[in-house]
Amino acid sequence: MSEIRRAEVLLEALPYIREFRGKTVVIKYGGAAMERADLKEPFALDVILLRLVGMKPVIVHGGGPQIGSLMKRLGKEPKFVGGMRVTDEETVEIVEMVLVGKINKEIVGLINHHGGKAVGLSGKDAGLLRARKRKHRLPTGEEVDLGLVGEVELVNVEPIRLLEDNGFIPVIAPVGVGSEGETYNINADLVAGEVAAALGAEKLIHLTDVQGILDSAGKLVSTLSRKEAERLVTAGVIEGGMLPKVESALRALEGGTAKAHIIDGRVPHAILLELFTREGVGTEIVL
Amino acid sequence: MSEIRRAEVLLEALPYIREFRGKTVVIKYGGAAMERADLKEPFALDVILLRLVGMKPVIVHGGGPQIGSLMKRLGKEPKFVGGMRVTDEETVEIVEMVLVGKINKEIVGLINHHGGKAVGLSGKDAGLLRARKRKHRLPTGEEVDLGLVGEVELVNVEPIRLLEDNGFIPVIAPVGVGSEGETYNINADLVAGEVAAALGAEKLIHLTDVQGILDSAGKLVSTLSRKEAERLVTAGVIEGGMLPKVESALRALEGGTAKAHIIDGRVPHAILLELFTREGVGTEIVL
Amino acid sequence: MSEIRRAEVLLEALPYIREFRGKTVVIKYGGAAMERADLKEPFALDVILLRLVGMKPVIVHGGGPQIGSLMKRLGKEPKFVGGMRVTDEETVEIVEMVLVGKINKEIVGLINHHGGKAVGLSGKDAGLLRARKRKHRLPTGEEVDLGLVGEVELVNVEPIRLLEDNGFIPVIAPVGVGSEGETYNINADLVAGEVAAALGAEKLIHLTDVQGILDSAGKLVSTLSRKEAERLVTAGVIEGGMLPKVESALRALEGGTAKAHIIDGRVPHAILLELFTREGVGTEIVL
Amino acid sequence: MSEIRRAEVLLEALPYIREFRGKTVVIKYGGAAMERADLKEPFALDVILLRLVGMKPVIVHGGGPQIGSLMKRLGKEPKFVGGMRVTDEETVEIVEMVLVGKINKEIVGLINHHGGKAVGLSGKDAGLLRARKRKHRLPTGEEVDLGLVGEVELVNVEPIRLLEDNGFIPVIAPVGVGSEGETYNINADLVAGEVAAALGAEKLIHLTDVQGILDSAGKLVSTLSRKEAERLVTAGVIEGGMLPKVESALRALEGGTAKAHIIDGRVPHAILLELFTREGVGTEIVL
Amino acid sequence: MSEIRRAEVLLEALPYIREFRGKTVVIKYGGAAMERADLKEPFALDVILLRLVGMKPVIVHGGGPQIGSLMKRLGKEPKFVGGMRVTDEETVEIVEMVLVGKINKEIVGLINHHGGKAVGLSGKDAGLLRARKRKHRLPTGEEVDLGLVGEVELVNVEPIRLLEDNGFIPVIAPVGVGSEGETYNINADLVAGEVAAALGAEKLIHLTDVQGILDSAGKLVSTLSRKEAERLVTAGVIEGGMLPKVESALRALEGGTAKAHIIDGRVPHAILLELFTREGVGTEIVL
Amino acid sequence: MSEIRRAEVLLEALPYIREFRGKTVVIKYGGAAMERADLKEPFALDVILLRLVGMKPVIVHGGGPQIGSLMKRLGKEPKFVGGMRVTDEETVEIVEMVLVGKINKEIVGLINHHGGKAVGLSGKDAGLLRARKRKHRLPTGEEVDLGLVGEVELVNVEPIRLLEDNGFIPVIAPVGVGSEGETYNINADLVAGEVAAALGAEKLIHLTDVQGILDSAGKLVSTLSRKEAERLVTAGVIEGGMLPKVESALRALEGGTAKAHIIDGRVPHAILLELFTREGVGTEIVL
Repeated sequence: MSEIRRAEVLLEALPYIREFRGKTVVIKYGGAAMERADLKEPFALDVILLRLVGMKPVIVHGGGPQIGSLMKRLGKEPKFVGGMRVTDEETVEIVEMVLVGKINKEIVGLINHHGGKAVGLSGKDAGLLRARKRKHRLPTGEEVDLGLVGEVELVNVEPIRLLEDNGFIPVIAPVGVGSEGETYNINADLVAGEVAAALGAEKLIHLTDVQGILDSAGKLVSTLSRKEAERLVTAGVIEGGMLPKVESALRALEGGTAKAHIIDGRVPHAILLELFTREGVGTEIVL
Repeated sequence: MSEIRRAEVLLEALPYIREFRGKTVVIKYGGAAMERADLKEPFALDVILLRLVGMKPVIVHGGGPQIGSLMKRLGKEPKFVGGMRVTDEETVEIVEMVLVGKINKEIVGLINHHGGKAVGLSGKDAGLLRARKRKHRLPTGEEVDLGLVGEVELVNVEPIRLLEDNGFIPVIAPVGVGSEGETYNINADLVAGEVAAALGAEKLIHLTDVQGILDSAGKLVSTLSRKEAERLVTAGVIEGGMLPKVESALRALEGGTAKAHIIDGRVPHAILLELFTREGVGTEIVL
Repeated sequence: MSEIRRAEVLLEALPYIREFRGKTVVIKYGGAAMERADLKEPFALDVILLRLVGMKPVIVHGGGPQIGSLMKRLGKEPKFVGGMRVTDEETVEIVEMVLVGKINKEIVGLINHHGGKAVGLSGKDAGLLRARKRKHRLPTGEEVDLGLVGEVELVNVEPIRLLEDNGFIPVIAPVGVGSEGETYNINADLVAGEVAAALGAEKLIHLTDVQGILDSAGKLVSTLSRKEAERLVTAGVIEGGMLPKVESALRALEGGTAKAHIIDGRVPHAILLELFTREGVGTEIVL
Repeated sequence: MSEIRRAEVLLEALPYIREFRGKTVVIKYGGAAMERADLKEPFALDVILLRLVGMKPVIVHGGGPQIGSLMKRLGKEPKFVGGMRVTDEETVEIVEMVLVGKINKEIVGLINHHGGKAVGLSGKDAGLLRARKRKHRLPTGEEVDLGLVGEVELVNVEPIRLLEDNGFIPVIAPVGVGSEGETYNINADLVAGEVAAALGAEKLIHLTDVQGILDSAGKLVSTLSRKEAERLVTAGVIEGGMLPKVESALRALEGGTAKAHIIDGRVPHAILLELFTREGVGTEIVL
Repeated sequence: MSEIRRAEVLLEALPYIREFRGKTVVIKYGGAAMERADLKEPFALDVILLRLVGMKPVIVHGGGPQIGSLMKRLGKEPKFVGGMRVTDEETVEIVEMVLVGKINKEIVGLINHHGGKAVGLSGKDAGLLRARKRKHRLPTGEEVDLGLVGEVELVNVEPIRLLEDNGFIPVIAPVGVGSEGETYNINADLVAGEVAAALGAEKLIHLTDVQGILDSAGKLVSTLSRKEAERLVTAGVIEGGMLPKVESALRALEGGTAKAHIIDGRVPHAILLELFTREGVGTEIVL
Repeated sequence: MSEIRRAEVLLEALPYIREFRGKTVVIKYGGAAMERADLKEPFALDVILLRLVGMKPVIVHGGGPQIGSLMKRLGKEPKFVGGMRVTDEETVEIVEMVLVGKINKEIVGLINHHGGKAVGLSGKDAGLLRARKRKHRLPTGEEVDLGLVGEVELVNVEPIRLLEDNGFIPVIAPVGVGSEGETYNINADLVAGEVAAALGAEKLIHLTDVQGILDSAGKLVSTLSRKEAERLVTAGVIEGGMLPKVESALRALEGGTAKAHIIDGRVPHAILLELFTREGVGTEIVL
């Protein structure tokens, strides 16, 4: 590619840099983008570039195979109620150690190694994620006790604001703290939505392992309204792991986030592609 | 005690509050004070009071029995070279999970539960503790490779300052990051000394499980000079776990810390007693 | 008392320090607390401690036997109309000299001597207390001219805010200035109420020479509503010097002060006892 | 005078306004300018104009006939040692009441009544004038005890700076406070010199009841060097009340004040004439 | 004139200085005041004095004989449609060069030469004057195309505020920029009115070559209401070059400017006379 | 080009963005880059991108064919002395009109039209370029009077700093003002060097119509030392219009500018290529 073409590519980013300057972008990091070795560096560079051109990226990450692997090594037998995994105290302790003491630190280290200034936060830090027990109801209507699975009650944005206003990149582990100090494991997708809502973020971006949301014909939906989303949920087209992502997106939008996206994290630089090209990638959710 | 006597006690703290207002106090937290259930709340309250009357406490914590316990459960066999434990990659990973994902979070949760605003930091956050491999020499003069045991190369005080200047209490886990992004386990006592030096802290306080430093006659030394300290080390009177504490204290003093103390963490409210009474408790180290 | 018990006493103050941090507390200083030698230092220390733990005390003081003593020495004959003392120009001049040039300076000197940073203010400074002639009506309904006895028309909080926001303790003498520059002697209790109202103070505390407000049976009333206060006034149970204190308290509450207290200034450290203990002392007035 | 001529007069002040903008001017106020009814308003207006065009006037005032008059009324017999008045405790108390509670308040009221924002300060406020006993030696070489006559040990400029940086005009009474809290009467001329030195004022202006400094032939000296001043003192040409004024001027210049003037306060608007005309009035002292 | 009288003249300005301190005064500069050599320096000094005593003058200037002279030299033939001059592209280019590159620079140089800090601004700088084509209708009702004659669509006050808040005097040339980047020549009187409205200026002052607005009897009107103005326009008493001045004044008043004046710029120091005397000069327009 | 490749191009700019963030870059704009229609937009976009990613570009522009063209139209005959053009008063007036009123405004309009916030400055604005007559010596040693050709005596960086610190892009016309207010035409290359020196700019970039500096063999020199530059000047290899550019570069470097470049402005996006690629383009001058 000629040097001049390179300059033009830079300049094509200009309107997007101008648009997002000073704005907060919450990124839910997980799946292949977090686990595949070849996708880690592109992710780190993307986040650092956002920061350098004046945006304020905030990362929320999920767990991964490492939780299950440590549980297995510790001989921890999974318990299920009505098909749902029960999180007892020992489990939540393992989850916290892996999320906060391993995955979060790997992400922080990755970004810093490439020149960013990331700081990890657990939901316990400064009471960032105040949580309560999540009530779970089976399809039969029966309520089941899943143990220490929580939902976000309140996001204390103070430490996030302090970090992002001073040039740092906050990296948040989805662990919450209850009113009695107890630890809750919370779905990372939902945490990302709550954080985006609390910050009034400009954008919420979910990195997933699929192209985006597909309709019943298996075709990528580029824009999805709340109504349509509800229809696809009822029809069972949106299901499984995509459900909390859609719930998270809608929650963020209701809380004042301008745009929510579900994109394909398997594509290198998916974040830049979403932010710096006209068409974007994946599915955009709108109210 | 009469109400008036209570007021007088408050007022007796006045000169100390005035003296330490706006000053940073680094506290190495560990031993009984961290492990005994009845000493946790007094510690948390002490730290919160310091903050409320205008001081800036910074906590550095060590590990504890939890590291060994998790290693045992994972069937991890300890390796020794020349009597020293070797820290391989798997070990450092376990250490990091326990320090950052468990102990740090317990301390943060404890302080916040009593009304403080603690934020946990690993040495990886914003490159807080840049580390390198620690060279270890046996008494025979032979150098041994202990693996991923590190020493502090550089403390990046930026995130600590940001937090302490905005009303937060930083709680630091003694994990360092090398120039290639590798993880190092670092002695928490030495981390505390380096952090106090880098911050130009007013005080460094080590909470230990002994009364302070004892002389060869077993009597508590209330003030210890560098020279005397070196004599007691050579004489083998100061030994074992007390060695890094003395090294840490001297390092802090050389770096500009005004006073360094080794005190008895088994006494409830040892921190307040040290800061708010004329005699102080334990041993003060001076240059 | 053991050292540990002392630390506990400090910690018992923690919730109150947290609650009142950054809040303004107006203290009406007078009576025994101002005149008895053994009560002066406790008062000064109390005020300095409030300041050091982050509160903003503002002192309003009254006169005392010194005014009468100077008048007598100057051979000034008191004049009365309908049983009320008439304040002519010569009298108001003496009152101003004693209040501003003697009593105010003694209080300022007392606080500074113990390490505070007090600055005296007369109601003339920066037009702090704009006053007008107080209309006085005898029980017979007849209006009498008491001369230069004033009432507060407007409080200019600007110099108070400037001082309290910069670490100083304002000490206010109850002298007002009229629209033509004339000097008014104003009841110090009422000045304290107006100042508390204008500042939107958190608390107004009157130091008196009685236990608090007593009911018709002579029993201390711990909480007194406006309605009940009016009933006790009508019944003549609240009378004499207590009347302006109750009027002042109600005025402060109407102006946005959160709580008003009438306490026993003869008890050493009465201010700390009121602020730092659960039960408080004396009578709390509520709207 | 035509309107256009009026505009020209305004413009002739332009270079002086530009030169003194943001600069501190210490004015020693006393004598006729303070006592004659017709000179009070011109003084107040001059000071207010300085403030409005961006200068920072600081007033130091002396006493006056009022002190003697009150002493007489109180039947206070003057005591002399070697021809010098002795100030006992009762005397210093009267002095303080008159200076702080009467004269200071009159000046503050005068300036505020014409639209300025004056705040009175005693040397006790915030420890503004830390004083010690002045040693006095008779011409015979014998040292005499004059009681509570002080000299300035230290000027705490903090409250002056706070006031002048926030649009207020500080008015300082020459009363000092000793290390034991004792009150000292200090010569107002010398206080003005110390305050000018401590503030690094641009100018010190003494308002006197003479034209300026006269030489042995009785002719006004427009510029006086330190050397020449010393010669005139030795020769007895400068004597009496002019001595402390010259001492004060030299002290200010040594302390960094740019210019010191001794001018004729009997001329209305003497301050404006000095500041806003090329020739100035009276005598300028130079190092 | 005696020196004391001079001081009194200064003091007579005091209430006006106080009133206008920190306020923005927009001055439309043109006519004799801009063209006559003997009036240039008085204008510059007036503006500098305003700035020094704390006001914020903003200058808007018009063109002058220099535009016509350059056009003639360039052999540019004037075109007229229905008696109105048509501004083609070549003409607007000449206008811009003379206004921005000559007249504006002369004014800036004049003020700076006398010690002010003027900065010239064209309506193109930072998009200060966003303009659109002015629709012109002949008395017959027919609309004519006058070419690049514009009217103000939007004033971007950002650069003006930045300059005036930092001690500079903005000098604005009445050239606007269209949405396609095209240049418009705009009537300077109207620009002054729009700028005053956008800034919420305290005053708008038009310097003209007449005494003010005259009524049908040729007598100066000292205050003119909107209603009366409309009547005089309809009656043809206000006509020609006075029309845009009255329009400008009314526009400013509607936009929040407190007072608008049309004064005689042929009088030296007309600005000071208007601002610093009770009666003012010329005509004041009111809503 | 694939979308992913586009993202990679963006990321390749990351180290340069990081390096130059917050730094001032002075760009001498002229020649083809300023005159060729197809190069104007790329220039504007480059400058805006620099600003958006956190750099502070400052533009200094030269004249162009427009000056000669206006002179010709005005029938102005060029005068020469010893082969050098003489600038009389009429000429400098034309030069100022074209530079300030035409070229400067075109550049400002161009940048603003593409979304930047440019503000034009003449050397007269706030006394930005204080100039004096340039002494010119012919090769024969004879000194000739070239009239109003100036050289920079002092750069007042205050208005540049104010603008660049508030998000604006200053665009400077090379017109200076003498101590008597007279106008000077100054070589734009030299102005750029002085401005870069005064600002302590990170970089000075000259856009020229050649590849860079060529050696005697006609080969591009990529790095040129001062010594080598002097040799090439003496040898006549560097000559004509390149002489002031080299002089300007050396002046900037001496004044503290880190790097100076002479690059090929005929290449689109030459600025971005210089700043955002490893090799850079053209010639770098070093001390």
